Amino acid sequence: MALEVKALPFTFVAHALAIAGAILVLVWCIHFRGGLAWEASNKNLIFNIHPVLMLIGFIIIGGEAIMSYKSLPLKKQEKKLVHLVLHAVALILGIIGIYTAFKYHNESGIANLYSLHSWLGIVIIVLYGIQWIYGFLVFFFPGGSTTVRSESLPWHVVFGVFVYILAVANAALGLLEKLTFLENSGLAKYGSEALLVNFTAVVAILYGAFVMLTVIGQGPPAEDDYSYTAI
Amino acid sequence: MALEVKALPFTFVAHALAIAGAILVLVWCIHFRGGLAWEASNKNLIFNIHPVLMLIGFIIIGGEAIMSYKSLPLKKQEKKLVHLVLHAVALILGIIGIYTAFKYHNESGIANLYSLHSWLGIVIIVLYGIQWIYGFLVFFFPGGSTTVRSESLPWHVVFGVFVYILAVANAALGLLEKLTFLENSGLAKYGSEALLVNFTAVVAILYGAFVMLTVIGQGPPAEDDYSYTAI
Repeated sequence: MALEVKALPFTFVAHALAIAGAILVLVWCIHFRGGLAWEASNKNLIFNIHPVLMLIGFIIIGGEAIMSYKSLPLKKQEKKLVHLVLHAVALILGIIGIYTAFKYHNESGIANLYSLHSWLGIVIIVLYGIQWIYGFLVFFFPGGSTTVRSESLPWHVVFGVFVYILAVANAALGLLEKLTFLENSGLAKYGSEALLVNFTAVVAILYGAFVMLTVIGQGPPAEDDYSYTAI
Repeated sequence: MALEVKALPFTFVAHALAIAGAILVLVWCIHFRGGLAWEASNKNLIFNIHPVLMLIGFIIIGGEAIMSYKSLPLKKQEKKLVHLVLHAVALILGIIGIYTAFKYHNESGIANLYSLHSWLGIVIIVLYGIQWIYGFLVFFFPGGSTTVRSESLPWHVVFGVFVYILAVANAALGLLEKLTFLENSGLAKYGSEALLVNFTAVVAILYGAFVMLTVIGQGPPAEDDYSYTAI
């Protein structure tokens, strides 16, 4: 999109929002919800890993992966490597985060995969994996022909943006779903924890918006025939 | 975005999804939830107006408003008129839809504005209104200078897309929130109504995705100096 503004300043706002979001989700899960544990008799501590990994691991690192390709002052091959490694980290942490939700459900006797959040989560992680594998094969190794690359690139961006927007929206869905459960169990609707969780979702949405502004802003001058900056 | 595909075929898929979404939300609110009423002793019938107006009135008509500017075979001034009238209809139905949520809460003794869905809803309707007024003044009447128009247009598109994505995401949040309330009151998690509501949200998200594909696809040849097709 031909927004004639530089992408770089948007990334600084996004980084600040990323730090804020990470702090908020950690304060929520550790201070308000009792902490994180892989094995525990209090199964809620297992659940707590889920929002932490999904927000910090999947959404934030995934967003940094998207922005890295547009904003880092590196050669294209180096930016590609950073881009694909960060996305791989986000994907792996996302998969572990989803696993913890199943683990919590299974150990607590709660049904799996009935909610919109869970359905979308599965769809998103599968699409994210497909996008990563396609990107790796076509743009990195072994690499497609120049025609395949240049014709794929706009779709790589559009599909990636689509999956990422879905991921941010699904984070908001998850935070709202968990908070609704807690409020139905007696948590104060206007209490400090409720406000904190809602603000975490707002920060995640703002972060996603600034990641998207980075995608449509102007990157550094293009080095060769295909680049984000050409879009 | 330079997707070298025509926008028009995406609009046909979007129209089909719009019809599907409209049917799903009507079946839910009328068949499963007992129908719609402006005044009723059963306050749930007042609430039922909310999802119907927000999905059909705000999301679907708002999406059609977005697509109309890109896809209709009309002169630019005519497309503008269709675009702004459809957005005005969406905005007005959205405001009435939000009012019914407050009406239901107030008549049922339920707290207002504690959830993420409600917060985002207020933000979205305000941003939508600002976007409409700015668009009317700059692009329609009295109209800004050519420089203001051409510099505003990419931001008009980006801001409009941002607000619309938020609106679709918030529809999903609202459907999940209501369904979670119902499931906490005993509705079967894998029952036909739960599946119907979740599928309504999935259809709304797919509709939103096809509206976005229309925005980034190629429109008919541009008639003059500034146009969506130049973006």
